[in-house]
Amino acid sequence: MINYPNKKPIRDQKSVKKTSHANRGINFENLINSSNEFFIDHDLAYIYKKPTPIKVIKVNFTKDRFKTKKHKISEAYFETPSTTDYNGIYRGRYIDFEAKQSKYLSFNVGANLKAHQVDHLANVWRHGAISFLIIHFQQVDEVYILFTPQLLEHYQKNKNTATISIDYFKEKGYLVEQGFRPSIDYLKILDIIIDKEYDEPR
Amino acid sequence: MINYPNKKPIRDQKSVKKTSHANRGINFENLINSSNEFFIDHDLAYIYKKPTPIKVIKVNFTKDRFKTKKHKISEAYFETPSTTDYNGIYRGRYIDFEAKQSKYLSFNVGANLKAHQVDHLANVWRHGAISFLIIHFQQVDEVYILFTPQLLEHYQKNKNTATISIDYFKEKGYLVEQGFRPSIDYLKILDIIIDKEYDEPR
Repeated sequence: MINYPNKKPIRDQKSVKKTSHANRGINFENLINSSNEFFIDHDLAYIYKKPTPIKVIKVNFTKDRFKTKKHKISEAYFETPSTTDYNGIYRGRYIDFEAKQSKYLSFNVGANLKAHQVDHLANVWRHGAISFLIIHFQQVDEVYILFTPQLLEHYQKNKNTATISIDYFKEKGYLVEQGFRPSIDYLKILDIIIDKEYDEPR
Repeated sequence: MINYPNKKPIRDQKSVKKTSHANRGINFENLINSSNEFFIDHDLAYIYKKPTPIKVIKVNFTKDRFKTKKHKISEAYFETPSTTDYNGIYRGRYIDFEAKQSKYLSFNVGANLKAHQVDHLANVWRHGAISFLIIHFQQVDEVYILFTPQLLEHYQKNKNTATISIDYFKEKGYLVEQGFRPSIDYLKILDIIIDKEYDEPR
């Protein structure tokens, strides 16, 4: 059966594997997205995922089966996001974060965050945002929030490319409760920070 | 020359016309974008345009002339944005707005804003955001900001589909100064609102 004409070329097999990696990331994203929908439905917070930036090169006009005119994009490329994945408002505060998943008991900042994304988290924090990383560690199925000051502390000490161990998240971050609805109740952690700031403004 | 084989089909001619309409909108967007870049460069505000949401159907792997692997999107469609075009942070406040251009001395809300976008502006305002419309009236080359409460006032009185006259913008909104850098200095208008709220919190 080797090299049977209908066999998928090796490149395609790789692409399938890649997709499944990506899907693992998307699963955590889906939990965040559904939690955000829950918050919106209950008028608690308005936080949305930003669309993936795509550079459109070619657009054609087509008609679908109901003869409705449609713009079909026939050539486009993914672009690097200039900021983070999620932002919005909670309790009058600007919220901004990046959500990631890790297969390991550590998070590789260098491989998963661009320098300008870290700068973005730092810039908005300095201007009064609550900005953070939220990471799902798959091996232990635990979710942690690490706020920007603690991320920067680690990032600067370790020359930007370092891997952050889950122990650092345990020590300097916050464990996020997982449940049914919302599945990732990260607003509870934001409450801790917001309430603290009312007592001792930064 | 009628029906000469190389003549462009009528549909294509329409599409060219549509593109030129879209470009007019994009010109104002470019001024907002360059103003936002100015604000970022001067560490004043971090406000970004959200990418246009695109539903990706097919992705192929290609290699460019440097043999770098690339994901080429070969089929995708534009989606309706669930929120507004711009959001970010200024003076610790969550900022959220939609930027539009009008050829007329009025702004057609029904044709230019989806009901869920108006809801979004209202929701985030209620939660403490500064949300607004910023409109460029091309005939007079004037830019106005209309904050959400005044937009809603008009929207609800006039059964959602109404056109808002420039006079309403003059009476209930704020004229935005145009200059060289930044070209659209809308932060000055936000200052008025923020300073007012420090005196008399809403």
